[in-house]
Amino acid sequence: MRPETLSIIGFGAFGQLIARHLRPHLALSVCDPCVRPNDLPQVDPAQAARADIVVLAVPLPQLEAVLRAIAPHLRPGSTVIDVSSIKVEPARLMLDLLPDHVGIVASHPLFGPASAAGGIAGHRIAWCPLRGRGDRRLAAFLKARGLQVIPTTPDQHDRDMAVVQGLTHLIARSLSRLGPLPRDMATRSFAMLAEAAAMVQDDSPELLATILKANPHAASVRQRFLAEAAGIADEL
Amino acid sequence: MRPETLSIIGFGAFGQLIARHLRPHLALSVCDPCVRPNDLPQVDPAQAARADIVVLAVPLPQLEAVLRAIAPHLRPGSTVIDVSSIKVEPARLMLDLLPDHVGIVASHPLFGPASAAGGIAGHRIAWCPLRGRGDRRLAAFLKARGLQVIPTTPDQHDRDMAVVQGLTHLIARSLSRLGPLPRDMATRSFAMLAEAAAMVQDDSPELLATILKANPHAASVRQRFLAEAAGIADEL
Repeated sequence: MRPETLSIIGFGAFGQLIARHLRPHLALSVCDPCVRPNDLPQVDPAQAARADIVVLAVPLPQLEAVLRAIAPHLRPGSTVIDVSSIKVEPARLMLDLLPDHVGIVASHPLFGPASAAGGIAGHRIAWCPLRGRGDRRLAAFLKARGLQVIPTTPDQHDRDMAVVQGLTHLIARSLSRLGPLPRDMATRSFAMLAEAAAMVQDDSPELLATILKANPHAASVRQRFLAEAAGIADEL
Repeated sequence: MRPETLSIIGFGAFGQLIARHLRPHLALSVCDPCVRPNDLPQVDPAQAARADIVVLAVPLPQLEAVLRAIAPHLRPGSTVIDVSSIKVEPARLMLDLLPDHVGIVASHPLFGPASAAGGIAGHRIAWCPLRGRGDRRLAAFLKARGLQVIPTTPDQHDRDMAVVQGLTHLIARSLSRLGPLPRDMATRSFAMLAEAAAMVQDDSPELLATILKANPHAASVRQRFLAEAAGIADEL
């Protein structure tokens, strides 16, 4: 009952990460105009669209063009799943642009190359089934890999991530701009803060823009956080 | 060669923490007008001053009065050590107010009841020997307990802590004022951030005032951090 073929469209840091973990279990192919996979079949968008599962791991600004390119070639019964760091906008695009005969899942794996360096087991993936039943088999497959599959809605996801990723990145970037941080003199809590910041330091500019700008709730959460911090400073 | 008697002046959260760890090794007594130790001798300031080692674990605003109270009673060859979260001001007070015949160490244990819940081994203590040689035996004793003894100067300490503790507490307080944080949807980096924040959440108002207000570098570091964060928000 396991899915047979899976194509990864977009072979950046995250596409490469999931390829490493999925290749023992599925027949993978990769579609990326810029990054050549070393030892996986490279396919064009039309070929990629004919897989049982099509994973969209492109930067958000490219998502619409990719959806339009693959839509005519998707096979009935296949499942398309995106992995963007926001969910309302990709969900809308997939529902608008993909044919009725394919299943759709909007997902957000809550890990990346840094946090999952030791493996993906125990990590989480936000899970929004949007159309069809392909999500069930896929969720079972991911659970069998040790992932926690967390059901949510695109809207709730984006609200949560405005805090979770929005503030982590804001704090991490702000700390890094202060220059070298004290190391020898760190308390345990500060060491954790610095480690959390280091974990997101290498995220791509595209990912950063998605998290800090494209998330519809990011600006208001950031403003609330900065207002609270300024308030604490003023109270002293 | 081990020190024989040690008095803890100020039996708050931190005084109680160190009492738990030191009592198997030293003859302890406690001096605190408000908190009665369950099973340790309770002494007055003059009695406390006659110990081989006198640990000052009172809130910073009380330090000067305590130093004046114990100064006439300190014995030649004894060592006085404070554990405040800043060091320039306590160092100045101790050097000004204590007699020449006692050793002085300004220290800052970089742990507390939350971070050292599992023990003090592996934790750090900032260490500024100011007068006499009592610090050497004391440092060796603490190293034997598994602590990392980090030599520094009062000024460098305060500069480092303006970042380490000042920003950790600012971020922790700001996060807590946002209300309940997402839990199920946390990335690993955000979970670490939230755990770091939780670790300092129960620190006393006196400690908070020392870290955020009394540290001479806290305000400028905080302003730089907030300016960087606001700059990131504006750039988007």
